[in-house]
Amino acid sequence: MIKVGIVGASGYTGAELMRLLTNHPEVEISYVTANKYAGQKVSALYPNFYGIYDLTFEKFDLDVAKKKAEVFFIALPHGTAMDVVPGLLGDNRKVIDLSGDFRFPEKGIYESWYKMTHKHPELLGKATYGLCEINREEIKKSNFVSNPGCYPTGSILGVAPLLKENLIFEDNIIIDALTGVSGAGRGAKEGTHYCSCDENVSSYKVGGTHQHIPEMEQEMGKFSGKEVRLTFIPHVASFSRGIYSTICCKLKEDTSTEKLLKVYNNFYKKDYFVKILPKGVYPEVKSVTGSNFCQIGLEVDERTGKVIVISAIDNLVKGASGQAIQNMNLMCGFDEKEGLEVVGLVP
Amino acid sequence: MIKVGIVGASGYTGAELMRLLTNHPEVEISYVTANKYAGQKVSALYPNFYGIYDLTFEKFDLDVAKKKAEVFFIALPHGTAMDVVPGLLGDNRKVIDLSGDFRFPEKGIYESWYKMTHKHPELLGKATYGLCEINREEIKKSNFVSNPGCYPTGSILGVAPLLKENLIFEDNIIIDALTGVSGAGRGAKEGTHYCSCDENVSSYKVGGTHQHIPEMEQEMGKFSGKEVRLTFIPHVASFSRGIYSTICCKLKEDTSTEKLLKVYNNFYKKDYFVKILPKGVYPEVKSVTGSNFCQIGLEVDERTGKVIVISAIDNLVKGASGQAIQNMNLMCGFDEKEGLEVVGLVP
Amino acid sequence: MIKVGIVGASGYTGAELMRLLTNHPEVEISYVTANKYAGQKVSALYPNFYGIYDLTFEKFDLDVAKKKAEVFFIALPHGTAMDVVPGLLGDNRKVIDLSGDFRFPEKGIYESWYKMTHKHPELLGKATYGLCEINREEIKKSNFVSNPGCYPTGSILGVAPLLKENLIFEDNIIIDALTGVSGAGRGAKEGTHYCSCDENVSSYKVGGTHQHIPEMEQEMGKFSGKEVRLTFIPHVASFSRGIYSTICCKLKEDTSTEKLLKVYNNFYKKDYFVKILPKGVYPEVKSVTGSNFCQIGLEVDERTGKVIVISAIDNLVKGASGQAIQNMNLMCGFDEKEGLEVVGLVP
Amino acid sequence: MIKVGIVGASGYTGAELMRLLTNHPEVEISYVTANKYAGQKVSALYPNFYGIYDLTFEKFDLDVAKKKAEVFFIALPHGTAMDVVPGLLGDNRKVIDLSGDFRFPEKGIYESWYKMTHKHPELLGKATYGLCEINREEIKKSNFVSNPGCYPTGSILGVAPLLKENLIFEDNIIIDALTGVSGAGRGAKEGTHYCSCDENVSSYKVGGTHQHIPEMEQEMGKFSGKEVRLTFIPHVASFSRGIYSTICCKLKEDTSTEKLLKVYNNFYKKDYFVKILPKGVYPEVKSVTGSNFCQIGLEVDERTGKVIVISAIDNLVKGASGQAIQNMNLMCGFDEKEGLEVVGLVP
Repeated sequence: MIKVGIVGASGYTGAELMRLLTNHPEVEISYVTANKYAGQKVSALYPNFYGIYDLTFEKFDLDVAKKKAEVFFIALPHGTAMDVVPGLLGDNRKVIDLSGDFRFPEKGIYESWYKMTHKHPELLGKATYGLCEINREEIKKSNFVSNPGCYPTGSILGVAPLLKENLIFEDNIIIDALTGVSGAGRGAKEGTHYCSCDENVSSYKVGGTHQHIPEMEQEMGKFSGKEVRLTFIPHVASFSRGIYSTICCKLKEDTSTEKLLKVYNNFYKKDYFVKILPKGVYPEVKSVTGSNFCQIGLEVDERTGKVIVISAIDNLVKGASGQAIQNMNLMCGFDEKEGLEVVGLVP
Repeated sequence: MIKVGIVGASGYTGAELMRLLTNHPEVEISYVTANKYAGQKVSALYPNFYGIYDLTFEKFDLDVAKKKAEVFFIALPHGTAMDVVPGLLGDNRKVIDLSGDFRFPEKGIYESWYKMTHKHPELLGKATYGLCEINREEIKKSNFVSNPGCYPTGSILGVAPLLKENLIFEDNIIIDALTGVSGAGRGAKEGTHYCSCDENVSSYKVGGTHQHIPEMEQEMGKFSGKEVRLTFIPHVASFSRGIYSTICCKLKEDTSTEKLLKVYNNFYKKDYFVKILPKGVYPEVKSVTGSNFCQIGLEVDERTGKVIVISAIDNLVKGASGQAIQNMNLMCGFDEKEGLEVVGLVP
Repeated sequence: MIKVGIVGASGYTGAELMRLLTNHPEVEISYVTANKYAGQKVSALYPNFYGIYDLTFEKFDLDVAKKKAEVFFIALPHGTAMDVVPGLLGDNRKVIDLSGDFRFPEKGIYESWYKMTHKHPELLGKATYGLCEINREEIKKSNFVSNPGCYPTGSILGVAPLLKENLIFEDNIIIDALTGVSGAGRGAKEGTHYCSCDENVSSYKVGGTHQHIPEMEQEMGKFSGKEVRLTFIPHVASFSRGIYSTICCKLKEDTSTEKLLKVYNNFYKKDYFVKILPKGVYPEVKSVTGSNFCQIGLEVDERTGKVIVISAIDNLVKGASGQAIQNMNLMCGFDEKEGLEVVGLVP
Repeated sequence: MIKVGIVGASGYTGAELMRLLTNHPEVEISYVTANKYAGQKVSALYPNFYGIYDLTFEKFDLDVAKKKAEVFFIALPHGTAMDVVPGLLGDNRKVIDLSGDFRFPEKGIYESWYKMTHKHPELLGKATYGLCEINREEIKKSNFVSNPGCYPTGSILGVAPLLKENLIFEDNIIIDALTGVSGAGRGAKEGTHYCSCDENVSSYKVGGTHQHIPEMEQEMGKFSGKEVRLTFIPHVASFSRGIYSTICCKLKEDTSTEKLLKVYNNFYKKDYFVKILPKGVYPEVKSVTGSNFCQIGLEVDERTGKVIVISAIDNLVKGASGQAIQNMNLMCGFDEKEGLEVVGLVP
């Protein structure tokens, strides 16, 4: 049994790590921190854990952390994760950071999009980007993984085969993405009030300012000779969990839905957690709720020479904690699916 | 008091006409038909009407209809409306058809997109397209109005100023639109089951096959010298009411959000029901729920040379029954706002 | 046009007063206060008011208030309302207090249930209890009305005819009530987070400690020779608006559903806003959403000698702001229905 | 690996059996029937199963069934299950019937509450009532289990310790229960339309006519010397999954919340799937969504001498398919928790 620590465990991604790890036979959660809730039982915040976990939140302490666990999930907000990660690296400890703090090789990009100073630029470029389907072999060899953002996971998986096969124009990708409300975090805000979100949809950072844009352009660019430019429009929809991405791309040449589906099936043929849907079927958020799957469907619009790709993930699972566990499985030599074979909650 | 008949009154748009007309001082509902529910009280289907209306659904009968009412709303599905409309026209009766049957000047377009034969091609081109803000003067003189579709209302109002001022490329408009579940009608289907829709979003007719596309291209084309081509991607979201359209267009020249907001405010300066939001504020579905307003917000994405316009309406009000009443008001010489001054239900 | 002031206008009941008063032909809102948001536009908090109201929140000031308005709605939390009400009373000004501060004739009850000291015990017993259907004539003569709580409105209307006719045991009334999330107010709390409320139901103050209990027992007692004792169990359900009360009473004698429906229809025969449903039909929250109606249905359970009464109201309308306007209408000599003839938003 | 057949697999309980059994290491689903969908892939109806199951629905055939599986779950509606069960019994096959057809020892009760003729009265009384926490030892020895109804599971578990210890009056139990919409089944009906259920709560069979009443009275009566009489009021709430039961009982003697919690903790001390919450904490539907847990909280109302017990389960898991698997585990000698250690989906 490997001992696992969760730093920042009181937030939704922390709780989701705990929820998913109840099903994992190879690890034991030995350390959970939440400075604000130190001394409180995990079940006091998350009543689904009554009688499941007897864990108590602790204040983070580096020395204690190193003694209590070998693998660390950092479930802190960006800007805070960078305070904790450097101390935990080393001595063969494995660190999986769910924040955006270590996703870029250079300081400038981070600072201009995240609007803050990076305190550990010396570590930039050291983390492996943890999109498992794309970087599986590198992740297996890494002790430091930067877990992708929720939007980037859905979008990159949705568009990678098209870029890899040079089928679309790189500078005209439009992504219209819906996030579930849990994406805004557990903290109480006016914007996450039930009465603000229910029976509603709203938009934010509409004009190309979301901090996930450079991450998507960077990773998408790796599939393509040219620079990728995308118009990204995020919305908050009235569901708790999910990222639903509608990706519209201009095709370089005429093709058919059938041909593109073949490209996708081939690209993801070894990837258990990516499911390509048959022609005429498109993903629904609910099909992947609570699961680590990414469902993808697509259709060519012949009248306009576009291809529309739709991908659905659970933002807290494949978009965060599930993928983090998938990364841990790869890093620790476990079966990649361990703890993650739960099917989406339908109905 | 003018006498109003609603043909096909058992569906959601019929019920919404009744709901809105309770507030209208100039008209009285004198005739409601629903072949399937003939003999049943309106309140048996819609319990919000207990003690409000003592109306009973009747089977449609042309002679009875002509005797009982002067203004007719046709709230039947497309393909059925065309059976009823021809008989009602004439003798100064006013007919407002909410279906798609009379929105096109030529048979070919209708038949290829609606996949059915048009039985009254001689009437095509006779109806005034009832988008009030655009065709107000024509509507005032008309006795036969074809009420716009829900998606077209939100999209055309959203994009009209840009086309009018020649600011965007006409062949590269992408509309990602979310409809509330009521858009699928009142009939019980697996796809409208609560457990299918709740906490979910799904897509349909993804590849450019929705029957509202030619209507949008036709009406948008009137603002522009060139043919309009749009990629239209409809989704069903988990709210009962609303159309939320995210419209992404390629700008012909660099401009700013502020400049475009001025263009919009100017374009709609006489239109009470269209509200242009200030910079940095975007529409929400809830802000217009139950109301006849269309809220519009926009933002320029300077990195990609795009403008993103977002419009929100209630599909059953501005997208159907509210606009139909607005049309009636214009046709009958009432105040355009009569019966429609209800504000969106927030929270 | 009578000038109306809303004190504490930034909360949900304040906003609802503004929403409903857009339809009222006799009054004009001339003064809205919200200390926390002073200087901000009403539409900045409630985007449904863009282009409708150009009002700006002010800090409350007694002298300004008296100059700017004649009728005052106090939409402050309990404990705060009592600071404002005394200064506004007098000079024929009309004050309608939506809080619980002036609902009891004696200090002791208030202080033991609301857990705070009452600063103006001299005013206790001075306000008319504003349950319009029950106290209509007293309200017409009053300048100071204490608007009922949301739970009491639904429960008292539901049970009054049974108590009046001495049909049930007064000491064995069980009320299981569901409130919409808006009942918890606009402020951001963990408990009102979308992800806490959606697809959920939870309970609070289960063991007979809710502060609405003495209000219900007091008012119900007025219909009955004996003291009323009730077991009240409140829950929060996943809808924004509504109070849904299921009231279970032990019958003193055998009777039938039909007979009791007659009693109810007779009791409420002059009350437009109370609708008694026919046998076999029970209220739904949605039927009254956004409206001032109270729908009531009932059924006798012959096996157990109980009667089950179900009542539904919109907590923000009949349970707060709508009833407050109904009170204003009575106090000012307007038609009782003015501004309130909106039907529930279905679907 | 034991081979499992699911008869009536296209409904929600059938789908839930498939979902849960993906996590069960000891069994394999070898036969799924759905006469209406014979020949269709399971994933065509339930897109969460794309790439998980390659199963195809078959028309039920007794000979094929016997060849293909050893353990059968009957997920058919009542009235239909009785056609299938008799043929499957015998030869050491294990049959778990999720319908109400075999829950009563005598024909009369079934026929008067279910309003249909029982075709196999000779089998009445032969099935073990499968409420695992109560009948564990009998179930281990049984080859024929009648799985409890969803309401009875929540209610009996909620009230059993009080009856066992003779703490409440048996003839004055009031149960107000909320079911999720999935309880109405997968079939499309007007009453399960999203627009009928969302933001809503409604009631049905209010006057003591629900067919689960005799089942509850029968099983509760086994804990008590006297006949149990209960007033049962079912409602449909706006969540997909869950049974939330509020049980109000008259105490025979004064007691305290603390004492009763001890009674409950003691009663369920060996039952992993029943969680008694600490004082002041009450169950929420969401805490058990997707899981096999039953959470119970309670509070004494000293003013009225009542105890209020609240229990929450997922109607499709502990209320149907999860409990059916728990029964299979007991009948087959597996660990009772096998396949069921999933924690509720929060947030």
